[in-house]
Amino acid sequence: MPTNQSPKATVSSVVPDHGVKAPAPDRALLDDLVVANRILFDQGVVDAFGHVSVRHDKASDRFLLARNMAPGQVMHADIIEFDLDGNPIDANGRGVYLERFIHGEIFRARPDVKAVVHNHSPTVVPFSIVPSQPFRPVCHMCGFIGAGARNFEVREVVGDASDLLIRSRELGAALARTLGTGYITLMRGHGATIVAESIPHVVYRAVYAEVNARLLAEALRLGPVTYLTEGEAETARNNVESQVQRPWNLWKARVAADVGLT
Amino acid sequence: MPTNQSPKATVSSVVPDHGVKAPAPDRALLDDLVVANRILFDQGVVDAFGHVSVRHDKASDRFLLARNMAPGQVMHADIIEFDLDGNPIDANGRGVYLERFIHGEIFRARPDVKAVVHNHSPTVVPFSIVPSQPFRPVCHMCGFIGAGARNFEVREVVGDASDLLIRSRELGAALARTLGTGYITLMRGHGATIVAESIPHVVYRAVYAEVNARLLAEALRLGPVTYLTEGEAETARNNVESQVQRPWNLWKARVAADVGLT
Amino acid sequence: MPTNQSPKATVSSVVPDHGVKAPAPDRALLDDLVVANRILFDQGVVDAFGHVSVRHDKASDRFLLARNMAPGQVMHADIIEFDLDGNPIDANGRGVYLERFIHGEIFRARPDVKAVVHNHSPTVVPFSIVPSQPFRPVCHMCGFIGAGARNFEVREVVGDASDLLIRSRELGAALARTLGTGYITLMRGHGATIVAESIPHVVYRAVYAEVNARLLAEALRLGPVTYLTEGEAETARNNVESQVQRPWNLWKARVAADVGLT
Amino acid sequence: MPTNQSPKATVSSVVPDHGVKAPAPDRALLDDLVVANRILFDQGVVDAFGHVSVRHDKASDRFLLARNMAPGQVMHADIIEFDLDGNPIDANGRGVYLERFIHGEIFRARPDVKAVVHNHSPTVVPFSIVPSQPFRPVCHMCGFIGAGARNFEVREVVGDASDLLIRSRELGAALARTLGTGYITLMRGHGATIVAESIPHVVYRAVYAEVNARLLAEALRLGPVTYLTEGEAETARNNVESQVQRPWNLWKARVAADVGLT
Repeated sequence: MPTNQSPKATVSSVVPDHGVKAPAPDRALLDDLVVANRILFDQGVVDAFGHVSVRHDKASDRFLLARNMAPGQVMHADIIEFDLDGNPIDANGRGVYLERFIHGEIFRARPDVKAVVHNHSPTVVPFSIVPSQPFRPVCHMCGFIGAGARNFEVREVVGDASDLLIRSRELGAALARTLGTGYITLMRGHGATIVAESIPHVVYRAVYAEVNARLLAEALRLGPVTYLTEGEAETARNNVESQVQRPWNLWKARVAADVGLT
Repeated sequence: MPTNQSPKATVSSVVPDHGVKAPAPDRALLDDLVVANRILFDQGVVDAFGHVSVRHDKASDRFLLARNMAPGQVMHADIIEFDLDGNPIDANGRGVYLERFIHGEIFRARPDVKAVVHNHSPTVVPFSIVPSQPFRPVCHMCGFIGAGARNFEVREVVGDASDLLIRSRELGAALARTLGTGYITLMRGHGATIVAESIPHVVYRAVYAEVNARLLAEALRLGPVTYLTEGEAETARNNVESQVQRPWNLWKARVAADVGLT
Repeated sequence: MPTNQSPKATVSSVVPDHGVKAPAPDRALLDDLVVANRILFDQGVVDAFGHVSVRHDKASDRFLLARNMAPGQVMHADIIEFDLDGNPIDANGRGVYLERFIHGEIFRARPDVKAVVHNHSPTVVPFSIVPSQPFRPVCHMCGFIGAGARNFEVREVVGDASDLLIRSRELGAALARTLGTGYITLMRGHGATIVAESIPHVVYRAVYAEVNARLLAEALRLGPVTYLTEGEAETARNNVESQVQRPWNLWKARVAADVGLT
Repeated sequence: MPTNQSPKATVSSVVPDHGVKAPAPDRALLDDLVVANRILFDQGVVDAFGHVSVRHDKASDRFLLARNMAPGQVMHADIIEFDLDGNPIDANGRGVYLERFIHGEIFRARPDVKAVVHNHSPTVVPFSIVPSQPFRPVCHMCGFIGAGARNFEVREVVGDASDLLIRSRELGAALARTLGTGYITLMRGHGATIVAESIPHVVYRAVYAEVNARLLAEALRLGPVTYLTEGEAETARNNVESQVQRPWNLWKARVAADVGLT
């Protein structure tokens, strides 16, 4: 059975760089990653914690992620390249997120996934701590939730005295297994992890996961809820998400100047 | 029985222009329509999605609506003229809202209606997914809800695997039938559509539909609710709505400079 | 028994001036009244509707109140003098609030009252429509609620098809009777009326009535609530309200520049 | 048994200075205390009321606390030195917080505590008035709540007609006993008191106590809740709180310019 984690384990750390840098990613991809950090904060689905990554466009076994810092303060110079084991390539002594294994293991398990958000979305977390209440889609904007988000219970991996963090490849892989072929997974007492085929898509889904949580929580207090059917969820996801550029443009306009873009 | 919609159906599209432009609408009407887009966003009853239209003042079989974009970014140049079938007159290759049929079919069915809002109002949507809980007025500002909003169930028209969107004249007409002679109709898992005799009226009603939803949702948690009687609703609507210019002026003052008005 | 009100009754109106102006009120009193209008809007306890009045410091049978407009836009020039019957003295053709009778009749009935707020406080209104759930104080800042706010049911005065508005001296007097010797009364489906010995006091109470409503509504969902005893309410009101200048200064600092004060 | 407090007891007062000033505290400590006041307001966990103190770095029997004022307006010049009995050393006639005894008695009882926040956190207070509903941690950011916050019932000390305020050393000592070895205690109908080993820690805990309250209140409405185990709470507190500088930097960046820091 699982062993408890030692107390006072580090959360952020300086980790030795490993390997050789891939060719530089497209500037537009970097721009989008920096903007995504700022949008997630501006839209209230990350606070000082949480992170967003993108798979490297020139090297499918690499991903890009900010150094250990608040997403709302990320600039271009803060982006670091990682391999799928979670080793930084060019941290140059800067601290990295402890939970980078979320990103590496999902990129490994899901070739279709190009971008990952991990957050502590305020109305999604309550669903993570009430396992009897499924998190299912109730509106056409949220078809990506499909038949309902699966809930990752960290205790099943590391026992009942952990810090709940995804602090190892083992835990990242376990989380990726819970995610399965879905687009969102809840993490008990912790948050959510959301995946998509692009940065604008994953940001859209992170924002609308919170919207769905608010709609559903409110509706559950009113009476029996009509959920989307699986067919509705799939059709709505396919069709509505053809429009992700619309909110992306709106949200980007609010933060672009702060990161030197216009 | 209804057939499912094909997946990956387009949501926004470039549609060929059709017909000859009507005489130019009053500049004040255009100003109000642009301001209405901005107010609805500023007041939190549309996000990147939702739209507001007005019947053309020079041609009762035409209406004015923005091109496919976030309401919070609409400028004068973004307004397009449509006929009641949902054909653009002067899109000139710009994308149009898929759901323009909401507007066209309501303007066709309801000669008294001069302005239409469709939105995903955050506290109204939960009522749309709890059919057992009627959405009735509970305060004197919300008499336009009358005896309660009727709830449009899209499954009854297109089956249980659609994207819930009003993507055809047929669906627009079905929605208009559900609206009937009322001023607001809910749309299951989707949003609301609100109508009125002028732009300031419809904006007022869109904002106060959300207010009524918050008041009612909170009250239902406290105990048995005293709703407005139908008589109270009608008297309150008639009298209170003589004041719509007061909130309009307040709300307009917050957004006018952004659209070049002072 | 009560008679229904005629539909399309006016809500705002131009009313003939009546009588002779009292000596000019202290400039500081006018400043406070203008600032109070702005604070109530900035703190979210009035929207485009609601009003605040003060008894004239030079004529106890007169009170000062803005012309018919949104409180968040009131300037010094918008203040009008009224007699206790609700007649304006110096409106000079400007529209006045229909519900000025709230203020006149309370100032008549309660010599101790120097300032009155009427509003549609968003979390207080739900308590007004759930008569079985008393609005009692649950925190030391809200002792002014005493043994609980009494709830005015307009139907008992004018029947069940009114617009719920206090549109006559008769209705104002009925409301004043419900208020009795208290400091706050709820108005079913409409709002609240709050009174105090000064403008800063009444603004404090209007803001903290909303705070109490939020605390109480949340607590009622958690389990059985410990209310303040009547002794606690009275002691807390006496002691805590000696500090009303502290929030007043904080709130005033946010709005003073907008009304030409520094 | 307890005696009632006299009505109209003062809440703020000018108290004679007592004793000799300790050597000047580190400038960085003063900076942090001023910034903490501003952050607590900016993050919505104090309003015009509430306070934060720090133990003097040059004299462990002294603490630093603002004069009687809104935390959101505190500047360096407003900080006063106190002894553990609550006597000011250098008030020089400025009013002091009535409830300074909260700070003095906790610093006396808990040598490990270096900083104390007392506030009326909006979603924590409801838990204080529902004694049957324990306030336990439900997310990894909130391990400091441990096995659950103990609830201080002021009636047990001063009877059922007090103003609920901690207006004496006796009451401060009673509160400190309820706190025991914990990091947060609720105060019925009043607020919370939170302690930590540094200013950034205590600010972090004050903000995340409110976060935990929101998560827990929402979750309790959804169904049976999975709380953190005591082991999880302890491990999470140890590990996650190694990161308190991250939110501190984010929050400080929003307020630093207002207090003359950059």
